[in-house]
Amino acid sequence: MSEQLTPRSENYSQWYQDLVIKADLAENSAVRGCMVIKPYGYAIWERMQQHLDKMFKDTGHVNAYFPLFIPKSFFSKEASHVEGFAKECAVVTHYRLKNDPNGGGIVVDEDAKLEEELIVRPTSETIIWNTYRGWIQSYRDLPLLINQWANVVRWEMRTRLFLRTAEFLWQEGHTAHATAEEAMEETRRMLDVYATFAEEVLALPVIKGSKSANERFAGALDTMCIEALMQDGKALQAGTSHFLGQNFAKAFDVKFTSKEGKQEYVWATSWGVSTRLMGALIMSHSDDNGLVLPPRLAPIQVVIVPIYKNFDQLDQLNAFIAPVKKSLEAKGITVKYDNRDTHKPGWKFAEYELKGVPVRIAIGPRDMENGTVEVARRDTREKSVYQITDLDLKVEHLLNQIQDNIYKKALDFREENTYRADSWEEFNKILDEKGGFIYAHWDGTSETEQKIKEMTKATIRCIPLHNKQEQGKCILTGNPSTQRVIFARAY
Amino acid sequence: MSEQLTPRSENYSQWYQDLVIKADLAENSAVRGCMVIKPYGYAIWERMQQHLDKMFKDTGHVNAYFPLFIPKSFFSKEASHVEGFAKECAVVTHYRLKNDPNGGGIVVDEDAKLEEELIVRPTSETIIWNTYRGWIQSYRDLPLLINQWANVVRWEMRTRLFLRTAEFLWQEGHTAHATAEEAMEETRRMLDVYATFAEEVLALPVIKGSKSANERFAGALDTMCIEALMQDGKALQAGTSHFLGQNFAKAFDVKFTSKEGKQEYVWATSWGVSTRLMGALIMSHSDDNGLVLPPRLAPIQVVIVPIYKNFDQLDQLNAFIAPVKKSLEAKGITVKYDNRDTHKPGWKFAEYELKGVPVRIAIGPRDMENGTVEVARRDTREKSVYQITDLDLKVEHLLNQIQDNIYKKALDFREENTYRADSWEEFNKILDEKGGFIYAHWDGTSETEQKIKEMTKATIRCIPLHNKQEQGKCILTGNPSTQRVIFARAY
Repeated sequence: MSEQLTPRSENYSQWYQDLVIKADLAENSAVRGCMVIKPYGYAIWERMQQHLDKMFKDTGHVNAYFPLFIPKSFFSKEASHVEGFAKECAVVTHYRLKNDPNGGGIVVDEDAKLEEELIVRPTSETIIWNTYRGWIQSYRDLPLLINQWANVVRWEMRTRLFLRTAEFLWQEGHTAHATAEEAMEETRRMLDVYATFAEEVLALPVIKGSKSANERFAGALDTMCIEALMQDGKALQAGTSHFLGQNFAKAFDVKFTSKEGKQEYVWATSWGVSTRLMGALIMSHSDDNGLVLPPRLAPIQVVIVPIYKNFDQLDQLNAFIAPVKKSLEAKGITVKYDNRDTHKPGWKFAEYELKGVPVRIAIGPRDMENGTVEVARRDTREKSVYQITDLDLKVEHLLNQIQDNIYKKALDFREENTYRADSWEEFNKILDEKGGFIYAHWDGTSETEQKIKEMTKATIRCIPLHNKQEQGKCILTGNPSTQRVIFARAY
Repeated sequence: MSEQLTPRSENYSQWYQDLVIKADLAENSAVRGCMVIKPYGYAIWERMQQHLDKMFKDTGHVNAYFPLFIPKSFFSKEASHVEGFAKECAVVTHYRLKNDPNGGGIVVDEDAKLEEELIVRPTSETIIWNTYRGWIQSYRDLPLLINQWANVVRWEMRTRLFLRTAEFLWQEGHTAHATAEEAMEETRRMLDVYATFAEEVLALPVIKGSKSANERFAGALDTMCIEALMQDGKALQAGTSHFLGQNFAKAFDVKFTSKEGKQEYVWATSWGVSTRLMGALIMSHSDDNGLVLPPRLAPIQVVIVPIYKNFDQLDQLNAFIAPVKKSLEAKGITVKYDNRDTHKPGWKFAEYELKGVPVRIAIGPRDMENGTVEVARRDTREKSVYQITDLDLKVEHLLNQIQDNIYKKALDFREENTYRADSWEEFNKILDEKGGFIYAHWDGTSETEQKIKEMTKATIRCIPLHNKQEQGKCILTGNPSTQRVIFARAY
């Protein structure tokens, strides 16, 4: 089974593609750039949703749903937003098809042309702030803390499953506040929620920071982000939280009466993560044998495979394993017992390895006699024989160990692939030979950042929060700099 | 607060509209026919989703996600499907906007015209069966039991919040089977799931049956449905489950190798319920004072309102109520404690009545002294004084009682508004004077059904499952009939 995957060392990009397809996570559809998320991939996304949704609700947010379509004119209302989002998008121009009078099948009915084109939402700030105008009159209506789970469309030319697709699934939070301070606090709170989720659930170490002006969300005053490092040394932005100031309130005329009785524009944030996280998850932990899933996210945490020579043995194993399965489930562990007789144990082992099931338990007739089971962990591929006494406690402990180990491995990798560059030559050498995160001085101008990007394909991933201040010289221009920022080539 | 609603007796349709808006469930958006589902309405929909999703998974289904867009040509592949769905729909023709060179804002970029138009999915049979072709080779790949939670678009000309909107949210199950029998069994199983959900969660009595040929889903051999009766005597189709035969397998060339080694076309079902259920929920239980929610679906099951004259009293009440709230929550009851000092108790009472919270508990200083609380139930609007001892058990019991009572009330209403008509005159008299479900003989032809519809606006809601066979004469033509079917005017 594992021979199915191109090794990472040979072709990382092909390995990723192979893995997504062969672990049954997703595939390309008949519609250019749109993916089909297969049941196993969707089950992982559902687990992400459950964790995130709970964290959003625990921080006081509620869900709602806004229209898929946005009138074209809405995009023009916020000047920088239109540049960022209204260009590569799906445009609905008609609302009816008809039978071709010339017998050419069904065709667009030209009589059913929309007066104003509708854009399939690439993000929902405009339609939501247009709606908020009716919901916000007084400071008593604030804060408004709303999240939406939805599909969005951005007409990307080059697509890759999960990482960049024309349609993707995401959540977008859109909050409204009475003061700039409150909105900034919300922006940071949600960045923290994302970082906690990434580290504790995805086992993905991330660096929190702010984007440079070049990389900001179209319409934001500040874009904060979490940045992760993939196994090939490229960075991946795993979530963003934007402080939007009063830009959208002004564009859509959303004012409130303050406690002091004054009319003021409302302050806004928005924040989102998407099915792109599936790509981050795959690329940070998996290996040449397949997916490696952190237990907190695995749809199946433990698989039990019986080893038998005849149906008599299988019957005995079924009876032996039933209470074992039950005791694990009583601990809240998700267990699959795969006693299909259509596949051999070796095939099953490879299959669950490919699918990243954290713990595999194999039980044969001799185990029954001895009161033991064979336990294999996916992350290290180590096998051990466990006494069956207190197996539930031991497996629970092992799952926690695996979660921690996967995180630690990713963190070690990031530490080993984080560099400091003090000259242009050094910077290029690291980029080309090693990749990774590079802390380097930058003179703070968009021009320099742009030049560096054009020359090296590296971008500023973020200016870390609480960044150490130190005097230095920009690696490109030599102009003075007060802090290092993180550069990397990125997905 | 209750004066805000138009009474049902005065204008049922306006009452519905008032209620949806004033209970903060949904509102119309800036995009024609598309609604905004507000947080309180969405919380109810989320509860529906949770119940249904669990029932789908308990019956072996998994979730997946397919593209929002469907190539136009896909619709032409299944002859009757194209008639039903490819007409009133949102058509994407372009993938880019640009700045108008003449300064007219942003305009469609004519250079970015799609070679083939994309339809925003009105339902997903075509794109899904096109995908299944790659997933199904052998009988070992069957059955395939997949569900999708998604948004869909049908360009309706006359829309009403929840009941008929251009965009709506739904789930669509799409399953693939080796035999017709298995597919029929699945069709019935999911009809049963819907009926159980409607009756046990929504407290909505439904009649299970098959649609006549006229009312069938475009592409189905049999459409089964659950039909409910609203308080104004009109019927509402609350869910459908379709036996699709081999139509889509043939249209998209989906074959499998049977156990016997033969190539055969796959058998299909599809089934769905939508945010329309929100409309059914509202129209079957609510009254002139607002929403009435069955406890199993209520986002807030119990609200506790403190009655106090000064902040000293409020402090004491806060301390007194904290353990009460905790003991209710320990029973799995969702409790809101509303001790806001910005609103008076009377305002809160009306607010929670409008929002359909099943149980309201009011506690004042005298209650604290006496160890009592005042309990009001939303369905009957009765108030009682409860001793605080074992309050958790009493409230748990009361919530169950309310759930049962709401169901019983709706069932009684349906029984009282179910008639038999044996002549054309009688049929029309009942329709015009009473409404409701009318059991009447029909000669079984589409022509007669169509004529009856044109003359009376009544349609055959369903031919009930296990329908009693009896000789009779069609109410319109007098031709022989072997069973009564259910007629009604419908939403």
